[in-house]
Amino acid sequence: MADSRALLGRPVARNINESTSDKSIAFAAKAGRRPKLAVLTSSDPSSQSYLKTIRSTAKIVNCDTLEIPVESAWDLGTVIKALDSLNKDESVDGILVQEPLPSKINLDRLGIVIDPRKDIDGISPEQSGRLFRNHKSALAPPTARACIEILDFYRYGLEGLEVVILGRSLVVGKPAGILALSRNATITWCHSKTQALQSICKRAEVLIVAVGKARMVNETFIRPGATVIDVGINVDEDGKLCGDVDTDRIRSIATAYTPVPGGIGPVTTACLFDNLVRAAGYRLKK
Amino acid sequence: MADSRALLGRPVARNINESTSDKSIAFAAKAGRRPKLAVLTSSDPSSQSYLKTIRSTAKIVNCDTLEIPVESAWDLGTVIKALDSLNKDESVDGILVQEPLPSKINLDRLGIVIDPRKDIDGISPEQSGRLFRNHKSALAPPTARACIEILDFYRYGLEGLEVVILGRSLVVGKPAGILALSRNATITWCHSKTQALQSICKRAEVLIVAVGKARMVNETFIRPGATVIDVGINVDEDGKLCGDVDTDRIRSIATAYTPVPGGIGPVTTACLFDNLVRAAGYRLKK
Repeated sequence: MADSRALLGRPVARNINESTSDKSIAFAAKAGRRPKLAVLTSSDPSSQSYLKTIRSTAKIVNCDTLEIPVESAWDLGTVIKALDSLNKDESVDGILVQEPLPSKINLDRLGIVIDPRKDIDGISPEQSGRLFRNHKSALAPPTARACIEILDFYRYGLEGLEVVILGRSLVVGKPAGILALSRNATITWCHSKTQALQSICKRAEVLIVAVGKARMVNETFIRPGATVIDVGINVDEDGKLCGDVDTDRIRSIATAYTPVPGGIGPVTTACLFDNLVRAAGYRLKK
Repeated sequence: MADSRALLGRPVARNINESTSDKSIAFAAKAGRRPKLAVLTSSDPSSQSYLKTIRSTAKIVNCDTLEIPVESAWDLGTVIKALDSLNKDESVDGILVQEPLPSKINLDRLGIVIDPRKDIDGISPEQSGRLFRNHKSALAPPTARACIEILDFYRYGLEGLEVVILGRSLVVGKPAGILALSRNATITWCHSKTQALQSICKRAEVLIVAVGKARMVNETFIRPGATVIDVGINVDEDGKLCGDVDTDRIRSIATAYTPVPGGIGPVTTACLFDNLVRAAGYRLKK
């Protein structure tokens, strides 16, 4: 079989960013200000690196950002106070909390604190419920959305296909499954307790992998002709970035795959800002 | 193979009702009143029949009921007004809206109106999201809970098993899948767009059927030794109640199955009142 196709994220992101930028300009014309993303930032190196991407994307899509550094001495009360004030700030349309947070602070717990209308990361019960119930206004977690957007862009349909999702996190696996289900896929969730994992993954016409284990998925997991979406971002023993999928070993079996880096990553940031501009628009209408 | 075991609902319901009754009495001792379920009732015969079951179960579990008949002339505004007043009524702990509603009224839309703390039927985005996020305080739709409760009672574990759910409704299929996933099952959702439906159902160690089609599932859907949960309640050509599963044809293949009537039905009512008493308790704590 010929080598499979690498589904690059940048063209997808560019496409989404263009549409976001248009919506952003239209919002500014009505609201008299640009959509604004507030970020509680973490000093962790990977968070700082993502912050740079956020800043540069904000410029591209005509949005503003407001950065609030979370200090290591902050406790749950301090974080809640900061979120409360962002909830009340009329000029803030979306709130993102970077991880890792200072010890003992649970991001899931913060989901109850953030105003669901500003929850562009999809961590509140209200937004999870809207996603679950297939409401059009739902703000789904950007990484989960990115999995679907990349398939859409490259015209890989989902209807009637067997989609297997490896991983059931609240930020990727679970919401990606719900999104694929709403596209009429037959979906299966696998996880750490799944037996005969390989043989179940081998059923997948589309395999979405989000487990956080460097190169865990190899040719023994792949159905011939499958499309493989790799959400993992790991650092291998040589300090090199890699995904959850061992690309070299699946390339001759899969039809298409997303590379790491350069696959899901850029699309995720684009989806974050699309959520921001949609959230801004919904608040304006009310 | 020997005939399979019928998993009867009554013993399961009795067990849940006993525990609910205890919690209800404890609540009344603290609150000075009994938990109260408000029902917007429908004049539809099957709704009226369910209402009788609700009344008799309420007595068993020491709860009160308040019935508000929805008249055929009511429009969305009237229903919302009725729900608003129940939201505000401090003596009401749970709200149930019976279907069918007068034309053009969408139950999903009402999910946004009901106070999530009183949403014991699990139709609000907030409660769907709590279920999705595996919060302990989630009030899951009673029918979905019943599927899991009946398996628990008869000691059929779910961890690591392949569970296939046929149907993806918001009241049964989708929430039952999430509940099974939180019990560490590997879960697959099938639906009307699924291809090779039988062969996918045949993978199931536990098959949950909620499609609303009389006796649709027969021996060609069943893996030998499977446990089959039948959520359907249909009336066949002879006017006889029957499930979505053709019990006579699967009996020699499955290990166990829930009969219709007498399976999931009684457990659902028990789960409804358990949700009511839990909702009452949560409001008291606040």
